[in-house]
Amino acid sequence: MTKSREIRLKSRPAGTPDASNFELATVDVGSPGAGEVLVRNSFMSVDPYMRGRMYDRASYVPPFQVGAVLQGGAIGEVVASGAEGFAPGDLVSSMFGWREAFVAPAAALEKLPRQAGVPDQAFLGVLGMPGLTGYAGLREIGRPKPGETVFVSGGAGAVGSVVAQVAKIMGCTVIATAGTDAKCDWLRARGIDHAINYKTCGNLLDAVRSAAQANGNNGGIDVYFDNVGGEHLEVAIEVARPFARFAECGMISGYNSMEAIPGPRNIIQVVGKSLCIRGFIVSEFAGLRPQFFADMMGWIAAGQLAWEETVFEGVDKAPDAFIGLFSGSNTGKMLVKL
Amino acid sequence: MTKSREIRLKSRPAGTPDASNFELATVDVGSPGAGEVLVRNSFMSVDPYMRGRMYDRASYVPPFQVGAVLQGGAIGEVVASGAEGFAPGDLVSSMFGWREAFVAPAAALEKLPRQAGVPDQAFLGVLGMPGLTGYAGLREIGRPKPGETVFVSGGAGAVGSVVAQVAKIMGCTVIATAGTDAKCDWLRARGIDHAINYKTCGNLLDAVRSAAQANGNNGGIDVYFDNVGGEHLEVAIEVARPFARFAECGMISGYNSMEAIPGPRNIIQVVGKSLCIRGFIVSEFAGLRPQFFADMMGWIAAGQLAWEETVFEGVDKAPDAFIGLFSGSNTGKMLVKL
Repeated sequence: MTKSREIRLKSRPAGTPDASNFELATVDVGSPGAGEVLVRNSFMSVDPYMRGRMYDRASYVPPFQVGAVLQGGAIGEVVASGAEGFAPGDLVSSMFGWREAFVAPAAALEKLPRQAGVPDQAFLGVLGMPGLTGYAGLREIGRPKPGETVFVSGGAGAVGSVVAQVAKIMGCTVIATAGTDAKCDWLRARGIDHAINYKTCGNLLDAVRSAAQANGNNGGIDVYFDNVGGEHLEVAIEVARPFARFAECGMISGYNSMEAIPGPRNIIQVVGKSLCIRGFIVSEFAGLRPQFFADMMGWIAAGQLAWEETVFEGVDKAPDAFIGLFSGSNTGKMLVKL
Repeated sequence: MTKSREIRLKSRPAGTPDASNFELATVDVGSPGAGEVLVRNSFMSVDPYMRGRMYDRASYVPPFQVGAVLQGGAIGEVVASGAEGFAPGDLVSSMFGWREAFVAPAAALEKLPRQAGVPDQAFLGVLGMPGLTGYAGLREIGRPKPGETVFVSGGAGAVGSVVAQVAKIMGCTVIATAGTDAKCDWLRARGIDHAINYKTCGNLLDAVRSAAQANGNNGGIDVYFDNVGGEHLEVAIEVARPFARFAECGMISGYNSMEAIPGPRNIIQVVGKSLCIRGFIVSEFAGLRPQFFADMMGWIAAGQLAWEETVFEGVDKAPDAFIGLFSGSNTGKMLVKL
């Protein structure tokens, strides 16, 4: 009998989630039947989008249910298999995170190719959903041309750090914001042209505008990759050059808000500047995965692309890891080691 | 000696323009030299975008200067010509509106082909800049497919009435808002599926949502053509289906505001619904003019496309006509007969 500890949604958060919204339980996961696989998770992912699933409302993914185990990306090893094509020791990814082990039909798993020089958990970050999100959103929506200026918020996060580095690889000037000096130092070490600590820079508009003017590029930005929303979005509209493209990946600044947040007060500039503000969900770009994987492995091998991880230990710490996303306590990908 | 009365900007409006912001003057326009043409205007256009040029700020067109004659679209007849290709009696369009007559280099004029069954002033409306704005914005940004639902605000205006009718021609269900029952009646007579008087409908969101649900189309809209901004934009985001396209043509509700207006409080839905909000200026689509002209003449001849005009008489009434745009006192194109 395999036991698994798991995290359940105890109550829907009102505002910023806290420990009381989660509960730890232990279950017996049973043994795999025909066509099923028993997996022991090694790492699980916590991601900002999960906050949206804690509201009881229709969206692009169904809401989590109170009292039920949470879901999310995870990687693990096959322990026992009743399914063809899966053998003990195989590395797999699934959406059965927030738990230590599980039995699932083989169709719900993806077998992963272990990569030399890349730890397995990279499949939850730089080589996984967050990496593809940054890569595809930048390429397909931002469409930066060499010499253009790309602005990315949350630049040291799992998605933003990919955007910032890929934009440099594409020949752009890059302005990135982050919430600590250490994150800004990491961005500068990665060759990012302008790293701005939005918590200490004073007026964010002035800081971004002066970074953009340092480029000589008419003092504006051509692409904005938004992970944050709120003031950052308003600033980006203000400094946008005509025909700038906004890849709207997320607006974490508003995810926990108890009331409607006013939108950008300068949205009227969308007309006069012919701006394109385009939201997206990574699943739209699933078809890019082979190209994404090839590009990323090449850039990693060439030393052009690096990443950070922030790791909590133990499934019981998963709520803390998740809650920490909203105060920016992660640099790079936030993970839980199981 | 040809005298011309003209309207000058006396002072920059604070908030909604009033008569005190304009002054009438009479000038001697002289005679055309070599390469020049003397034109007597027959109609001039007033358009919402002109309000933006009354602010002293950089934009896609330079600001009007206090004390100088205003500018804008006009049509007229050549009276005397020192330029090859222009002869007395020719119909021409120019940007020398807000005046009765003028002398200008031939290069600043466009010769217009008089059309059977279409009055000359249609070149300021349905066959002119507003018509192209609606046609091109709907086609190139809205990209409606047959069977989709198109929502247009300001649906009885010069631009909106073209959008609403072309969307019907393209096989869409059309929801349009307007500010009087008479405008809504006109829209219904043109075959528009749902005409909503936004001033009397009560809750605009409920009214638009229930119109959209009447289509069975999952109760949402696929295209929003925005002339209004403000609450209309927020409503459109709320009822948008995934991957809806927003053609942001104008936001007249905010043009006279003395303070920054909060943007849409639900802008976060841009992410989850993968919306595309794209502003534009008609000049981007100048290359579509031949196709536009051919399509429009065909639809007019077939009785599929009609238009209204609201005409003020005399250049001295031009400020009233312009000011009237912001209270919706026009049905269709607002013109001044000179």
